[in-house]
Amino acid sequence: MKRPPFTPTIAALPKLVPFVGPETMARSRGRPFRARLGANESSFGPSPRAVEAMRAAADQNWKYSDPENYELRTAIAAFHNVAIEHVVVGEGIDGLLGLTCMLFLSPGEGAVTTEGAYPTFNFHVQAHGGRLLMVPMRELREDLPALRDAAAGTGARMLYVSNPNSPMGTHWDAAHLNAFIASLPDGVMLLLDEAYCDTAPPGTVPAIDAGNPQVIRYRTFSKAYGLAGARIGYAIAARDVIEAFDKVRNHYGINRVGQIGALAALQDQEYLRHAVGSIDAARNRISAIARDCGLVPLQSAASFVAIDCGGDGNFAKRVLDELLARDVFARKPVVSNLDRFIRVSCGVDADIDIFAAELPKALETARRG
Amino acid sequence: MKRPPFTPTIAALPKLVPFVGPETMARSRGRPFRARLGANESSFGPSPRAVEAMRAAADQNWKYSDPENYELRTAIAAFHNVAIEHVVVGEGIDGLLGLTCMLFLSPGEGAVTTEGAYPTFNFHVQAHGGRLLMVPMRELREDLPALRDAAAGTGARMLYVSNPNSPMGTHWDAAHLNAFIASLPDGVMLLLDEAYCDTAPPGTVPAIDAGNPQVIRYRTFSKAYGLAGARIGYAIAARDVIEAFDKVRNHYGINRVGQIGALAALQDQEYLRHAVGSIDAARNRISAIARDCGLVPLQSAASFVAIDCGGDGNFAKRVLDELLARDVFARKPVVSNLDRFIRVSCGVDADIDIFAAELPKALETARRG
Repeated sequence: MKRPPFTPTIAALPKLVPFVGPETMARSRGRPFRARLGANESSFGPSPRAVEAMRAAADQNWKYSDPENYELRTAIAAFHNVAIEHVVVGEGIDGLLGLTCMLFLSPGEGAVTTEGAYPTFNFHVQAHGGRLLMVPMRELREDLPALRDAAAGTGARMLYVSNPNSPMGTHWDAAHLNAFIASLPDGVMLLLDEAYCDTAPPGTVPAIDAGNPQVIRYRTFSKAYGLAGARIGYAIAARDVIEAFDKVRNHYGINRVGQIGALAALQDQEYLRHAVGSIDAARNRISAIARDCGLVPLQSAASFVAIDCGGDGNFAKRVLDELLARDVFARKPVVSNLDRFIRVSCGVDADIDIFAAELPKALETARRG
Repeated sequence: MKRPPFTPTIAALPKLVPFVGPETMARSRGRPFRARLGANESSFGPSPRAVEAMRAAADQNWKYSDPENYELRTAIAAFHNVAIEHVVVGEGIDGLLGLTCMLFLSPGEGAVTTEGAYPTFNFHVQAHGGRLLMVPMRELREDLPALRDAAAGTGARMLYVSNPNSPMGTHWDAAHLNAFIASLPDGVMLLLDEAYCDTAPPGTVPAIDAGNPQVIRYRTFSKAYGLAGARIGYAIAARDVIEAFDKVRNHYGINRVGQIGALAALQDQEYLRHAVGSIDAARNRISAIARDCGLVPLQSAASFVAIDCGGDGNFAKRVLDELLARDVFARKPVVSNLDRFIRVSCGVDADIDIFAAELPKALETARRG
């Protein structure tokens, strides 16, 4: 009894997990967190109309979803003023990033990204045998010129940029991004992850040019829309790229309740504006709490705040560990030039109250070392 | 502006879709179906406790699901009396089949399956550049000895068997399957798709030997459990195979509401028995309706009935088209040795009533055709 070998790519892969979930941490701690501020979820929740639509859909969950995701794609296409043939729906941006690697990356081919940026992209690149080319952040932002140069000099097929980026919450404005897009070397696909674009200041998001053959735009209902559990993301790209997604995607992979919730959420832009306002207020509050403790929060365009703890990576790690020990779930970057920061997600006042109460104590204990 | 080339595998793939959804057909027809009996969903629905759990979870859908799917995997492991390390949860069996191809299949390597069996497996094999080796059914069953010989003679890495199988609803008993498993050539993984096992007669399902390095068992909540829209399937396999799934799966890909519904459904086995009884009654009713029309239904172990229309493939196609024209959604096999059949899913009496009323008319028109 002998199984077949794993493919060479799989056999060479280390066991790795992009993010340890708060549930896993709670199990090993033996108790739940009191404030869930680590995964950039929105505890402000989705539109009440989305909740109502999902409730109403529960007893219809015996049916598969429409594998063409027609209603949702039609609404997304209308929202962005593109044809439906430019839109594909996936199991969150994560799922679409994996499929994108499948489309463009043969083993050994390069993918450029920023050191310390979204690790799930790296996870998918490695699972497809790709070669990761890492560019450090520059002044706490993704370094567009260096990313482009890395892609040009190495024959890379894909270039990942998030705007605003996680884990720092910094961003480029649309003018810079448009110049960057115009300067892309031929043969490189820009994967522009805009998961956090809904909370960015005006002028951040470039106009969508769905026909551009070198750009895929990724959006999600997981962040400002408040539907992380629904697992609905989408991509906008040239028609032939969307056709290629159709060759490989799991056609019946999108769950019915989530899809119905996402549609209702998209149709309630007034609630989205309200949620973005709440997120902005939480951002300001988290920043003020950090400043009150003598720390330096970064200006954030995303639904979280990166806070410079003022010491080295070990110190920030101690601060994070003390927060976790006090039942506050937060996260931190680990790469060397970002590791003095911790990252705290926006959330409802009750959760931020707990953070406000615990941060001074966490700092005091961390400073005692 | 030039995009990167698609990988050679993707570039060579035809545009194909495993199944056209009833929504797509309804859109092109311009009106909905009255009886949804084509996708082997269960209109008996899931346990009312699952519906209630999903309703209650709707306003918590702002949270990502536990990426380890710990509660659901724990319950599945206990249900099958295996350790949790033998269980992986995926976006339906479909999603897990795609990942399995990723684990074992390099471009050009072979995968054996039955001609006319589940096309989504073929879809994933081709998307990974695999070579499909097709074995015809024999006496309307998957031909286990021929499948084994095809795998042995060709260096194939994977062998797909569904038991009971779709689209015929025939099955092998556990004794035959165990002998088949014992006879597998080294270096071949058996993908045993048991989507329909809950409705099979006693003695169909082999005991689970989770340590067997050559077998992956696939189960789903989409069929008898009545949760097709939830997109929750799982696989049971050796620990190193499950670890390999963890290297490539979309860790945050499982939607929260679906996962909670599946857990509640698993915990209500009394309802499952009730649903299986309803499915069995519908099977008998569909068979009787077919017989009343002079057609020959196959004895089915699955949640549908394949009906021999008594003519050739063209005649069966006319019968199906006449059913569709009368707003009855059903499907049919297309390969030459099975194409005289149509396939009708079990469902609630109201839907079977419509089928009973429309089949004689469809036959009459088809016979004139």
